Formats: sequence, structure tokens, C-alpha cells
Amino acid sequence: MRHMLSIAESSAEDVRQVLDRSYELRQAMKAGQPIPQVMAGKTAILIFEKPSLRTKVSFEQAVFELGGRTITLSAGEVGLGKREATPDVARVLGGMVHLIIARVFEHSKLVQLAEYSGLPVVNALSDYSHPCQALADIMTMMDEFGRDLAGRTLVYVGDGNNVARSLVAICGKLGIRMVLSSPPGFELDAGFLESTRLRSPELNVTRITDPRQAVKEADAIYTDTWVSMGQEAEKEQRRQAFTGYQINDELLDEAPARAIVLHCLPAYRNVEITSEVLDGPHSRVFPQAHNRLHVQRGLLSLMMGK
Amino acid sequence: MRHMLSIAESSAEDVRQVLDRSYELRQAMKAGQPIPQVMAGKTAILIFEKPSLRTKVSFEQAVFELGGRTITLSAGEVGLGKREATPDVARVLGGMVHLIIARVFEHSKLVQLAEYSGLPVVNALSDYSHPCQALADIMTMMDEFGRDLAGRTLVYVGDGNNVARSLVAICGKLGIRMVLSSPPGFELDAGFLESTRLRSPELNVTRITDPRQAVKEADAIYTDTWVSMGQEAEKEQRRQAFTGYQINDELLDEAPARAIVLHCLPAYRNVEITSEVLDGPHSRVFPQAHNRLHVQRGLLSLMMGK
Amino acid sequence: MRHMLSIAESSAEDVRQVLDRSYELRQAMKAGQPIPQVMAGKTAILIFEKPSLRTKVSFEQAVFELGGRTITLSAGEVGLGKREATPDVARVLGGMVHLIIARVFEHSKLVQLAEYSGLPVVNALSDYSHPCQALADIMTMMDEFGRDLAGRTLVYVGDGNNVARSLVAICGKLGIRMVLSSPPGFELDAGFLESTRLRSPELNVTRITDPRQAVKEADAIYTDTWVSMGQEAEKEQRRQAFTGYQINDELLDEAPARAIVLHCLPAYRNVEITSEVLDGPHSRVFPQAHNRLHVQRGLLSLMMGK
Repeated sequence: MRHMLSIAESSAEDVRQVLDRSYELRQAMKAGQPIPQVMAGKTAILIFEKPSLRTKVSFEQAVFELGGRTITLSAGEVGLGKREATPDVARVLGGMVHLIIARVFEHSKLVQLAEYSGLPVVNALSDYSHPCQALADIMTMMDEFGRDLAGRTLVYVGDGNNVARSLVAICGKLGIRMVLSSPPGFELDAGFLESTRLRSPELNVTRITDPRQAVKEADAIYTDTWVSMGQEAEKEQRRQAFTGYQINDELLDEAPARAIVLHCLPAYRNVEITSEVLDGPHSRVFPQAHNRLHVQRGLLSLMMGK
Repeated sequence: MRHMLSIAESSAEDVRQVLDRSYELRQAMKAGQPIPQVMAGKTAILIFEKPSLRTKVSFEQAVFELGGRTITLSAGEVGLGKREATPDVARVLGGMVHLIIARVFEHSKLVQLAEYSGLPVVNALSDYSHPCQALADIMTMMDEFGRDLAGRTLVYVGDGNNVARSLVAICGKLGIRMVLSSPPGFELDAGFLESTRLRSPELNVTRITDPRQAVKEADAIYTDTWVSMGQEAEKEQRRQAFTGYQINDELLDEAPARAIVLHCLPAYRNVEITSEVLDGPHSRVFPQAHNRLHVQRGLLSLMMGK
Repeated sequence: MRHMLSIAESSAEDVRQVLDRSYELRQAMKAGQPIPQVMAGKTAILIFEKPSLRTKVSFEQAVFELGGRTITLSAGEVGLGKREATPDVARVLGGMVHLIIARVFEHSKLVQLAEYSGLPVVNALSDYSHPCQALADIMTMMDEFGRDLAGRTLVYVGDGNNVARSLVAICGKLGIRMVLSSPPGFELDAGFLESTRLRSPELNVTRITDPRQAVKEADAIYTDTWVSMGQEAEKEQRRQAFTGYQINDELLDEAPARAIVLHCLPAYRNVEITSEVLDGPHSRVFPQAHNRLHVQRGLLSLMMGK
């Protein structure tokens, strides 16, 4: 695997390999065994066009655990396409370091970084997709239901955003049934579903507008914030539109008892999810966050090994 | 020792242990001897809600010297309690790293980090206390007067703030007599003195409003800025209220010849302290700053060892 | 060599030594051979009063490759001379770390850091000079024309700024003929040329206002942005004044076929240089950027060795 730009561009085989390696290394780490130091003497650049906590900590730690070093560039330092053309930044970095991990607004900048740097590039969140989040989400489902998730049902309730998009893509690769439940006007774009179906003919996605119907067969119920970074102006309008899409105990009552609850964090407590659910027995939200580290360690190990 | 949240919450035994270890490791470092790499393979998160120089450099360097790695989160990156509930940040970090070092506005956030992360937590400055500064201050007095400071007198001249509070607490633990000299309206709160006296019955604190009287038996004279971060609006009013509380040659004339001068920096030269005094023969201000590194190395060595 | 504050203050011998060591280590790195870990157990502080990409990445990576660690302070964290007097910052750092690398607005701050910290100090760009850039520029010319550049001609077209100043100084040390071509009112100050001539009597600098005449015997043609950080208000006025000074194919037609094109980046494409030239066969701009890493690795190896 050369890059990880999106789940859609990765093969099912790639996805499975990353998850296999992630399990293997997580187990070794927990047992206190040494893991291959595939990044020894190597440096990862972390570029953040958006502020970050989970993403920064989990990637820096993954690089450290693989023996590597990090250099972090914040928005003010890098100015991709503003202070300097993105291809020029890419070419400069290409002669100095070994790996680029970038969180960008425009997915096209990741593509340019990959094209012009000559380095492996990892998408740490773009407007288009969030592949490492999707990998962590799946690992969390596997922790619950076993490594074969074919036939399981993941119900995404809420905004049809980049997180939803990556989930659709990964469910398509792994034979997981996906149900999307978004308020009218906030659905994932049909074009994306069509193009995913072309790549993953076995894709099984259903739209069910009513969340109470949507969760009926859920193995996992997933939500994300209703107001992503950059949408603060629409906050009130969005909160109104999403009324009824909160993950709360009433909604869980409609779901099977086995259903687990996922959220990519940060959570707005008692907005898209209640504190009762977030801290309750169905929640796997914090192990899911920790799995960010585990899948990224696995991914980097594969990408940087040999 | 599990956490270092405040001197008040630490036992006298803890304080002595930290200082002992700090002396031991400082000596080894200066002799070029190896010190135990208790943080090998471990990562400290440094959280800064306020900008920092001394604190950041001394903690990062201490972690490095103990074999560990650091990940730094600035105010914009972490948003404790703003972008995300502090307990949620704590739980996420708890599954990724090994130690939290945090500089926060509200002390309660440190308590939450300790409660929810499952990790050891170090207070790197809060509105309530500044324990690592107090440890460095005491080490600097010990450098001058020997390791037993019982019966010595520390005179704090100026604003009754978090630095003063930590000094009172540590003097109580170590049998150091403390004199507080603050302008009316800027004294350390009586409630804090009362509660400290409950924990440390041997606490010997005197208030002497006139700084010229206060320093008569001083072994050490300590001051801090009159305008802390966040108080910039009161700047002129404060500077007026503190007239007469400047550490200058005239004030030193009232003190014993042996008295040393301490300041936790940054200093506003010729405001709370004159340049003559700061750069003069009584000043121990820069060795005191360097002792931040030495006590933090000792503290982390104790906390992270075994 | 104790410090690297400017090329002007370095001897010709120093400059040659840095370049020799840089070649030696670059070759070793490319051959996958180990290089002396002269910074093992040592920490470099990187101070950035201006945002930075190339400079930050190349210095951090150089320190890493020499076995050292970095602590980065951004403008908000350090406040040299604002939050705290620069000599006080210097004295504090002097007791905690081993090397200061600083990018400052005022060159005098570098001088103060060197005077009061007791540590070696590297200029990573000041209003006065940019020595590491000049070293990288010369290495790039050496890559093209061999290690002896005596008698070669470097033509600087554009703003008589700190980059031009460091180039004049280094050309004086190495016997390179320098031609300066700036619009009237934007020339390098005559006083600097005079003082450089006093230090380097063999200095051979010619001013030729018309860039088409200036490049006639060029081995290298160099330009920089017309609007440096801090000059944004003069942007339109400057762009007008510099009309005709763009490095484009027509200008290259006036130069010998062997001429290479250099730029210290970031480049404003189709302003001071066309994309055709920047991406064309004469451009050595990206290897030049990579040489920043190589000369800094060589410089730090010399400064920190033994």
C-alpha cells in the first residue's frame, strides 16, 4: 500500500491487511512485546489545517511506537496553496522527510501532496473522507462481533458528511449492511453512493429517514456532530433540522439489545447524543477513540515497512 | 506518588522525596552519569491553556532526559471544556499516552484530567497553585542554606496569588517561617491560610503589610509580577496599589546581608523588581529558573518509576 | 565555530569547512551510512518569530539526524523582548538546553541570545541576514559547477534584501563574482557593500540596473519574492516597481545556456518568476531547498561536535 487517501481508493484486501496488522500490533503492545521499528530513523510530517486533538495525539504516538520522529506544522506554518503552492510544498518536503500525514480542508491538496512529494501520504481528515476514522470504527465493531462482519448492520444516524462517506465505502468493502438515516436535505449525496456501488457491487446501503425505523436491526448505531467545523453559522438551523435524530435511550429502545453505540468525537453531549448513552452500557465510544491509535499504528507499519 | 496537583495535597514526605531525587539526578547529570530512563517508550502529553516558555522547555527537557517523548497541545488544539468536555478529553488520552502535564486556567480541570484519564497528572500551573515552581524555589533556598530549612524565613512581597499559595503550602510542610507582605486588598485569602493550617499545624505564617518591616529577618525575599495573565485590564490600578512593594536596593538594605532574592519569572524589570537587584549579587533568579528543570526531572522520575 | 550569526561574521575557512562537512554527511546519508551522532542527548531550541516551513522542517530534521531532540517555541510562546527581556530568556534557556536556533525579526536579538545564553546560536533568518540559505545556495552552485566556484558569476535579480546581503557576503568569501540587478530604490545598501569589501578585499560586486544586461555572463540567476513578510502593505507599489525584473524565458534567453536558476522559496509563481522557469530545465530551486537540510546538518555537526 503506497498511500491512504480514502477508503474508496483502497482495495478490500488493503483494508483487511491494515486491520490484520492493527490487531497483531495491538496485541503485541498490550503484551509488552517489541514491535517492528519500521520508522527507525524516519520522520513523519504532520500537517494540520484544522485544529486537532485525537488525530494529532494518535498519529504522533503511532509514529513514536514504530520508532520514528514527528515534525508538526500548524495552519499558520504551512499555508498550503496560500503562502505557497501545494505542489511546491510537496516537492520541498519530498527531499527532507519520509512520510506526510495531513489534515486538510480540500481533499485535492492530499492528492497534490501525494503526486508531487514522492512520499507516502496519509489522509488524517479531509472534506471528502476520513479513512483512519472508518478503520477504527470497524475495528471497534470487530472487537464486539468478531473479525467477520459480513451481514452485520451499521446504522448511521445524522449528517451525511465525510465520516458517513468513509463508512459507506468501508462497509462496501467488508460486506457490512449500511443504513443511512438523515433528515431531508442532509443526506449523503446520491452520486457518491452510485460511484461506490460501481467499485463495490456488493454494497448494501438503505436510506431510512425515520431513525426509529432505521435502528431496528442495528448491530452498531453511529452518529457524529450535527455542526462540523466551518458550519458554525448554520448551527441553530441545523440543530432544528436534526431534532429527532438524537441518540438517546428512547432510540436505543427501538434497537436490538446487542447494538453498540459509536461516535467519532468530539461529542456535543445532549445534542446529537445524550450523556446517558455516551457513558452508558452500549457505548463503545472511548475504545473506538483508542482504536484510532491502533489502526494508525497498523497502517503506518504496513506503509513504511520494507 | 500518583499525581502532583498541588503542594497542599502532597505529604511532607512526598515533598522531601521529590527534592531528594531532584538533588540526586541533578548531581548525576552534572557529572555526566546516566540516569534511570524511567520514561523509555513512554509519552507525556503537555497541555498549555496559557502560553509558556520556561514551563514548556523545562518539562519537555525533563521528559527527554528520562528517555521519554512529548506531544504538545496548545490552547487552540485542546479546547478543554470548550471544544470537548474535559472528562472526554481525559478518557481519550488515557488510552493513548502515559502522563499528562497541564497548564490550565481552572484547577478543577486538572482534577478532572486525573479522575477520568487513569493517568498520572502534573500541575504545570493553575489559577490555584504552581507546585513545581514552589519545589524549584525551595531547591534554590536549599542550594544556599543547606537541605534543612527548618527555622529559615521566606518573605513573599507582592500579590497574594497562586505562587504565594504554593509557597505557603510548601513552607508549612518543611517548617519554614513565612512572612506575607501584600498591599491591602491583594492579600492571600485567609481561608486558604486556615485550611493550610489544618493540614500543617506547624505552619508559621505572619502577615506584615509594610515590606520594610517584613524583610527584617528574611533568608529569602520573593516576588512575582503584579499583573498576571488575564489581569491586563487592571494593570494601571494594580501598579499604583503596589507602589512601595518593589524589590529594590533600599528594601534590601532593610534585610539581612545573607538574604537571597527569588522571582518566578518573567520579571517586569523596574516594576516589581529593579534590574540592579535582578542582576545583582543577592539574586538567585536564574539558578531558580534552572531548578524548574531539576525538580521536574526528579518529580517525573519518582512518578513514572516502576 | 561557535555561532552562525551571519556569513559576514564567519571566516572563509568556516564557510569552506561547513560546505566540506555538508558534502561529506550528505554523501554518507545517501549511501545509508551512519553519521556521527554529535547531538545524542542534546536538545536544540527552535525559536520562530515568523511562521516557517522549510526552515522548521530542515532544522528539526538535521537535529534528528545528528541524534538530537528539538523543542519548538512559536511567536506566541516566546515573546522575545515583549513578554520578557531577551537576555532573561537567554539566561533561562542557557541552563536547560544545548543549542539555540532562532528566526527573528531583529538581528540584535540573535546577538543577545548568543551573549547571554552561553549556548551556540544559529541564525535561521533575521532582518539582516540568512546565512544558512546562502550556504545552501552555494552548495547548489557547487553541485552544478564543481567545488571551486572562483570566477563564477552569480546574478541576483530583484529586491536588495537579507538574502541578497548574505549572498554578497558568501560570494566575497569564495571569490564568486556577484552582479546585483535591482530597480532603483530597492538596491542593497551601499554601506553594506563597503563594509563587506573591508572584510573581503577580493569582493567583486557589480551593479547593473538592467536585468537583461545583468545576466549576460551568469552561471546562476537568483531571485526572491518582491514582497517579504511585513511588507504586504507595499505590495502593489512593489510589484509595479519590479516590473521587468521577472525571471522568465525572455530573460533566460539573454543568459548563457549553462545558467541555472535559484530561488529561496516560497515563490510567487508568475510574479517574480514564471512557472515555466521554476519548473523548467534551468531551475535548481527544489534541490536548492533540499540543500538547506544538507548544509544545516553539516553546520550543526561542526558546531556541536566535540
